[in-house]
Amino acid sequence: MANATVHPEAQLGSGCQLGQNVVIMAGVRLGEQVVVGHNVVIHPDTILGDGVHVGDNSVLGRSPRPASTSTVTEANELPGLKVGAGTTIGSGVVLYSGSRIGDDCLIADQSFVREKCVIGDAVIVGRGVTVENETTIGSYTKIQSQAYITAWTTIEDHVFVAPCVVTTNDNFMGRTAERFKYRKGPTIRQGARVGANTTLLPGVTIGREAFVAAGSVVTRDVPDETLVLGSPARPVRAVPEREFAANQ
Amino acid sequence: MANATVHPEAQLGSGCQLGQNVVIMAGVRLGEQVVVGHNVVIHPDTILGDGVHVGDNSVLGRSPRPASTSTVTEANELPGLKVGAGTTIGSGVVLYSGSRIGDDCLIADQSFVREKCVIGDAVIVGRGVTVENETTIGSYTKIQSQAYITAWTTIEDHVFVAPCVVTTNDNFMGRTAERFKYRKGPTIRQGARVGANTTLLPGVTIGREAFVAAGSVVTRDVPDETLVLGSPARPVRAVPEREFAANQ
Amino acid sequence: MANATVHPEAQLGSGCQLGQNVVIMAGVRLGEQVVVGHNVVIHPDTILGDGVHVGDNSVLGRSPRPASTSTVTEANELPGLKVGAGTTIGSGVVLYSGSRIGDDCLIADQSFVREKCVIGDAVIVGRGVTVENETTIGSYTKIQSQAYITAWTTIEDHVFVAPCVVTTNDNFMGRTAERFKYRKGPTIRQGARVGANTTLLPGVTIGREAFVAAGSVVTRDVPDETLVLGSPARPVRAVPEREFAANQ
Repeated sequence: MANATVHPEAQLGSGCQLGQNVVIMAGVRLGEQVVVGHNVVIHPDTILGDGVHVGDNSVLGRSPRPASTSTVTEANELPGLKVGAGTTIGSGVVLYSGSRIGDDCLIADQSFVREKCVIGDAVIVGRGVTVENETTIGSYTKIQSQAYITAWTTIEDHVFVAPCVVTTNDNFMGRTAERFKYRKGPTIRQGARVGANTTLLPGVTIGREAFVAAGSVVTRDVPDETLVLGSPARPVRAVPEREFAANQ
Repeated sequence: MANATVHPEAQLGSGCQLGQNVVIMAGVRLGEQVVVGHNVVIHPDTILGDGVHVGDNSVLGRSPRPASTSTVTEANELPGLKVGAGTTIGSGVVLYSGSRIGDDCLIADQSFVREKCVIGDAVIVGRGVTVENETTIGSYTKIQSQAYITAWTTIEDHVFVAPCVVTTNDNFMGRTAERFKYRKGPTIRQGARVGANTTLLPGVTIGREAFVAAGSVVTRDVPDETLVLGSPARPVRAVPEREFAANQ
Repeated sequence: MANATVHPEAQLGSGCQLGQNVVIMAGVRLGEQVVVGHNVVIHPDTILGDGVHVGDNSVLGRSPRPASTSTVTEANELPGLKVGAGTTIGSGVVLYSGSRIGDDCLIADQSFVREKCVIGDAVIVGRGVTVENETTIGSYTKIQSQAYITAWTTIEDHVFVAPCVVTTNDNFMGRTAERFKYRKGPTIRQGARVGANTTLLPGVTIGREAFVAAGSVVTRDVPDETLVLGSPARPVRAVPEREFAANQ
């Protein structure tokens, strides 16, 4: 176990491997055959399922500590981070407490997931991605590198979010008290594809099996099975059925 | 103090807590009740005020070391990084020497601040943000996640920079000698709001209490209290007074 | 050598300096006068040339480990990462095995390079940049902060890729089997400049000494020595010869 610092109240399953300079805090539970890289910090009450791999220099299960000027109220008493069996976590990743990640996911290098998120099974969260708080991501969905997923977003199953997609949740950008009524991330329905570097305005719905072309700015809801394009994005044609997620 | 490596010429105030594998170099001064996470590296002459919190795996006060091919001349003899009382620094953050950060700020996870920057009080620098060298950011300003703030930018107080905003400073993109005359980041005046994934061309001024809609490309100055939209961004209407920063 | 963990089968040249908590694995070879920061992890068979500097908390030469649902087949038996003499690597960087980086490069903080990339000499890879797998970058090229370089991209010499440029390689966004036939990153020819926050569609070629204005969406090939602008980007005028890379 090299020179890891393991709290006496942590539990490690059989066959776990810990790298150098690892810190494991109270109440952490690692399943069987978990592999933890070097310089990894695992905060209290984090649970990693069987066969989870964690890359070097990652921080798992840290607690939120917003600025006094943030509109996010401090989340106390959150449960520990929970990561399902067979999931791979990259290097330099930061994951918060109070979130659940499913089985067989890839949470790639230098990515980031805030508190109170629920991520399904076999999801890819790409390199450098932000997933802000209270977001839900369905199974088999891919969030490509450097995408920005804002708070209170809902993404269903089999969705493809291309690199550097930008989502938003507040048309008032932090002004007026009424903004709290309207504040809402996008909803991206099953099988939809959202192109690289597109911008989704607050609260828009991207329909099932819809397709947003790269570089678009989406200001209104996109109907199911429809390809939209431009700034503002407008419907252009139907998505071919052979491209539906259901037909792969 | 766990197994931290603390240089004999560093000074730690009363009540400081250091994590595992922390490295603190010569001339570092920590105020009272400073909390430093695991695997944190604090470079020479860094000063952290009372009550500063630093997340795991962050690097504070490192010196610039540009490539030989960079146009940035090497900054020797910079003073140490200075961080004000009550500021929270996240995990995986990299901050350079020669910059000053005010009191009660949040410098979020995986963000980055270069040398010779001045950041006011109660500022939020979001997750994964870049703040390049010689940039000034006023108090109560929020730079949201993944925004890119180029060198020689001026941002005043109470500004809202939305996620993934992109700023620029060189219309010549590294060519001709005359570019050094014109090279200039944007100026964002007090109370302005800049929408997600907008692009600001070099040297533009965003007026006081102005509003740039998400996804715009700003090629000219934006008048005070004006909403602009599109690519290139054009004035659309006045910003309602109830949304002014001054009226919150 | 502080408290570094150095595998007995690693080789260190004369004058190397290792920080605290460094881990160096089997088969690693460091040239002379290599400086390695604190908390750095160097994976098996990595080769660093003379005078290479590595910032704190970086991970060099890690192996790819894609999700079971990824379309990237696992790259086994990759050679170790190779970094040329005089190259500077920042803090919080993640570099994969199976890639080669030339001499005198700057691989800036928090950046990322995947496997099977070839990067020339005197290249700058900016802060937070992604370089995905099987990409080639020519000498004297600058990839500015937060740019996203997709897999199977070709970038020639003396190219300027501005901050937050987004590249793509798959018009089908992960659907249909035929996509594998068409999947292709952009080709950016010698001396071209690509403006901040532009989006390059899959397979486009940016001609020699061409100029893409900031915020554009490039859907077709851009002719040599031509300035294009807008969404979709259209030719506007010729690039002045005094701005050619060849004339600097």
